[in-house]
Amino acid sequence: MSGEDAPAEQQNAVDQKQETKPAEEPKAEEPKTEPAPAAAEASTAATTEKVPEEDTFTYRALVLTGYGGYDKVKLQVKKGKPVLKAGEVLVRVKACGLNFADLMARQGLYDRLPSPPVTPGMECSGVVEAVGEEVTDRKVGDKVMALNRFGLWQEVAVVPATHTFLIPEGMSFEEAAALPVNYITAYMMLFDFGNLRPNQSVLIHAAAGGVGIAATQLCNTVKDVIVFGTASASKHETISQGGVTHPIDYRTKDYVEEVRKISPKGLDIILDPLGGSDTHKAYNLLKPMGKLITYGAANMLAGQKKNLIAVAKNWYHQFSIHTLSLIQGNKSVCGFHLGYLDGETELITQVMNTILDLYKQGKVKPHIDSTWHLEQVGDAMRKMQERNNIGKVILTTEPMPEEEKKEEPKKEDKKEDKKKDDKKKDDKKKDDGKKEEKKDDKKKEEPKKEEKKEEEKKEEPSKEEK
Amino acid sequence: MSGEDAPAEQQNAVDQKQETKPAEEPKAEEPKTEPAPAAAEASTAATTEKVPEEDTFTYRALVLTGYGGYDKVKLQVKKGKPVLKAGEVLVRVKACGLNFADLMARQGLYDRLPSPPVTPGMECSGVVEAVGEEVTDRKVGDKVMALNRFGLWQEVAVVPATHTFLIPEGMSFEEAAALPVNYITAYMMLFDFGNLRPNQSVLIHAAAGGVGIAATQLCNTVKDVIVFGTASASKHETISQGGVTHPIDYRTKDYVEEVRKISPKGLDIILDPLGGSDTHKAYNLLKPMGKLITYGAANMLAGQKKNLIAVAKNWYHQFSIHTLSLIQGNKSVCGFHLGYLDGETELITQVMNTILDLYKQGKVKPHIDSTWHLEQVGDAMRKMQERNNIGKVILTTEPMPEEEKKEEPKKEDKKEDKKKDDKKKDDKKKDDGKKEEKKDDKKKEEPKKEEKKEEEKKEEPSKEEK
Repeated sequence: MSGEDAPAEQQNAVDQKQETKPAEEPKAEEPKTEPAPAAAEASTAATTEKVPEEDTFTYRALVLTGYGGYDKVKLQVKKGKPVLKAGEVLVRVKACGLNFADLMARQGLYDRLPSPPVTPGMECSGVVEAVGEEVTDRKVGDKVMALNRFGLWQEVAVVPATHTFLIPEGMSFEEAAALPVNYITAYMMLFDFGNLRPNQSVLIHAAAGGVGIAATQLCNTVKDVIVFGTASASKHETISQGGVTHPIDYRTKDYVEEVRKISPKGLDIILDPLGGSDTHKAYNLLKPMGKLITYGAANMLAGQKKNLIAVAKNWYHQFSIHTLSLIQGNKSVCGFHLGYLDGETELITQVMNTILDLYKQGKVKPHIDSTWHLEQVGDAMRKMQERNNIGKVILTTEPMPEEEKKEEPKKEDKKEDKKKDDKKKDDKKKDDGKKEEKKDDKKKEEPKKEEKKEEEKKEEPSKEEK
Repeated sequence: MSGEDAPAEQQNAVDQKQETKPAEEPKAEEPKTEPAPAAAEASTAATTEKVPEEDTFTYRALVLTGYGGYDKVKLQVKKGKPVLKAGEVLVRVKACGLNFADLMARQGLYDRLPSPPVTPGMECSGVVEAVGEEVTDRKVGDKVMALNRFGLWQEVAVVPATHTFLIPEGMSFEEAAALPVNYITAYMMLFDFGNLRPNQSVLIHAAAGGVGIAATQLCNTVKDVIVFGTASASKHETISQGGVTHPIDYRTKDYVEEVRKISPKGLDIILDPLGGSDTHKAYNLLKPMGKLITYGAANMLAGQKKNLIAVAKNWYHQFSIHTLSLIQGNKSVCGFHLGYLDGETELITQVMNTILDLYKQGKVKPHIDSTWHLEQVGDAMRKMQERNNIGKVILTTEPMPEEEKKEEPKKEDKKEDKKKDDKKKDDKKKDDGKKEEKKDDKKKEEPKKEEKKEEEKKEEPSKEEK
C-alpha cells in the first residue's frame, strides 16, 4: 500500500503548463501540407459529404510523449479527420475516465499501450459523429460510451462500433465515462471468477477507488454479503454509506487482524489490486473454497516516475503458487485485467448489458470524484496516484475558461507559500473549472477537505523537486 | 497419464487371500479380556440396552497395515461395539466407495489418513443401527450414505450424524456408496470454482472414471455445454452415451491438438486430476476467463507401490504460477480436494442436497463399474489404479460365498493360462457374489467386456511379478 504513503515527487504545474501550451498552439498552425488523397478515396458514405474537412479538421488530444512523470502527457492538436474503416464509428468525446493502468502506462509499466508518442485512454463517452460501412446498430447522434485498448483521451476518437454502448436515459457523460472499465472489472471479478453468492464475505482493497466503489455496489446486489473495505480513515464515512460493512484504515491497523476479528475462518473473495506481499496476505486470508482475484500491482507505483526499487520489490515478492498448496487449501487464485480482454467483444457486451440493467434499476451508479480539463491531466493523474480520490477521476473535453488558464500557475505558487487561506481559494477556483454536478455536491465536499489535508502533507516532499 | 500405461506390479491374489484369512479367524477368537467399563458408562440411551454386546460384538474391517502394494490392505475382525459420542451415529455398512485418494493413501501419499494400522474409506452406505445423544434428525433404521475422512471400509462405522445423508427412494446401496465423493467433487469444481454456464466448453480427464462420469452428467444439466473427455478408445462408446461430446483417446492422440481442432481459442474449464506436465498443458489450453481446476496427482501413481521416480517427476513438473501470468491471461487456477474440506459440514450438506435433488429429477445417476467383496479389495484397487474401470468401483460387505472363496485362487491362475473361456466363467462367478442390480444390467455388460480386454493386456506386465 505504498502509493498513498510514499512521498511522490511533485511536478510543478507551471512547467507542465508551459510545455503543453506551445504544443497546443503551433501545432494548430502547422502548414496544411499533408495530402490525404488515399484517405479521401477510402472515406465512407458517412464521411464523403464533407471531404474538405480532411484538411481543416483539427482536434485536441492528450499524447504520452515518453515514459516518466505527470508532465509526459501533453495536450496537442491533431489535424485531419480520421477515416473510418468498416465497422468503425467516430465519436465526439465529451468525457474520459482515468484508470490505474493509465498511470502504469505513463511509467512504461503497461505493455498494452504502444510505444510513445501515443494517445492513452481506455474509456470515454460522447456522441457518434460518423459511422463507417457495415455499422448497423449505431447512428449519427447516438450518445455512447466506448472502451478501447488506448486512444480515447482526445476530442475525437475512432473505435469499432462493437466497442460502444448506448448511454441509458438519465446518465450523464461523466457517469458514462466512469462506468465501463471499473464496473466491467468489478463485475467479472466478483461474478465470473468470484462466483459471489449470498452470505459470503469479500475484502475490497482501495474501497474508495473506482473499482472499489463499483465492487461495493455490486456486492450489495447480492443478499447478506459482508464487505470489508480498506481506505484511509477520512474516507470511511463515504464508503460506509456506499455499502462497505467493515471499513478498515490500513494505515493505522493491520487489515489481516481486523478481518480475522470478525471472520476468524477467513474470507470467500478477496480483490487484490496491490500485488507483492499483499497477495500473500490475501492468499492466507482465504477460507476453504475462497477465491483470490488479483488485478494489478499498485504497490509497484511509488512516485510519479518508474521507481526501480518498488518494481524490483514487487517482483521479488511476486506471488507464485504451487498446485499442491491450492489443492490442500481448496483455494483459487485468479488474475484479471480488462486490458488483455480486448478480443472478447461478445463477453464484454454481455457483461456491459447486465451492468446497464443494474444501472437502470438504480442498483449501481458511478461515483465521480472530480472532473478535470484536458489541460489538467497531470493534476488528475496525481490525485489518483496519491489516492486522494473517492471514486472516479474524469477528464472533460470542454474548453478551459481563459481566466482559469491564467490563474493556474498561481495555484501551484501558493502551495510553496504554505498559506492555508490561499489554498482554500485555490480549491474553489479548481472547482469553477469543473462541470457542475449538483447531485454529487454534498459528497464532493468531503473529498475536497481531504485533498487539502493531503496537500499539506505533500509539502515536504515537494521541496525535493528537481 | 502414466497409471494406465505403466506396468503395474501385480499382486498375486493367492497370497493376499492367505494373509487376510488368518487375520480374520484368530482375531475373532481372541480371549475377551478387554474390560470396557468406562465405555459402558459412557454409552448412550441407544446403546445401553445391549451392554453385553460390548464384548460379543464383532465386525469385519479392512485395515491398512503399512504403506505399499495392494496386499497392505487386510481384512481383519474388530471386536467390541463402538461407543457413540454425542452427535454420532452407528451405521451398519452395506457398500463402500473406492476413491483415488485411497490408492494414494495406501502408498503413503495422502496425508489425511492417519498412520497405519488404520481403516481407510471415505464413503459408504448403510443403515443406522444406533444414534448418540443430541442426534435428532437420524433414527435407527434410516438408510444413509456417509462421508468421512477415513474409517468407512468396515461393516460397522461411527460417524457424526451431520456426515450422513438420507438415501432417496429408489437408490440402491451401491449407488449411494458411489455418489458422495465423486459427485460432490465434480459439483464443487464445476459450479463453485468453475462457475459453469451455458455454451461453455469443459475438458474432463479420465472421463470414464468416477469423477469423470459425475462431471459429464453435471455438465449435461447446463444448456449447450461442450464436453471433451479423455479415455482409452474402448471406453469411448460408453462415455459418448453418457454425454461426452468429443471423446479423445489420449493414448494414441495429443489431446491438446484434438481440442484445438474443435475449440481453437481454448476451453472455459479444465478438470485436472493428473498433475505434473498435464497441468501445464491445461493452463495453456484455457481461453481468457478460463478456469483450471486441479484435484489430484494421478501421474504420481505408477505401479502399486510408491514409485519414487514418478513422485519426483511429478514434483519436478509441479505447476507453479505467477500472478502476473494470471493477470495477463485472465486465468484462474484452483485446487480442490474434498478430503481437506471435512470442516465444511454446512457447505457439503448444501451441495449434497442439490445433488440429491438432481438425482431425484433423474439428471444424475452413479455408474457402477463393479462390486467386490471386502476380501477382494486388492483386485478392486488394482482395477481402479490400472484404469480398467468405467465408473465407480464398489466394495460390498455381503459375505463372500464359501465356494467363491475356494475358487478365487483359480481365477488368478487362469489369467496366467490365458484361457478366454475360463475367464468368462470367472467373470460370471464374480457377478454371482454381487448384489443384483437389474437396472444396470445392460450397462454392466460393457464394462465386463472391456475388463476382459484389459486383462489380456495386463498379462505381459504380470509376468514381472516378484
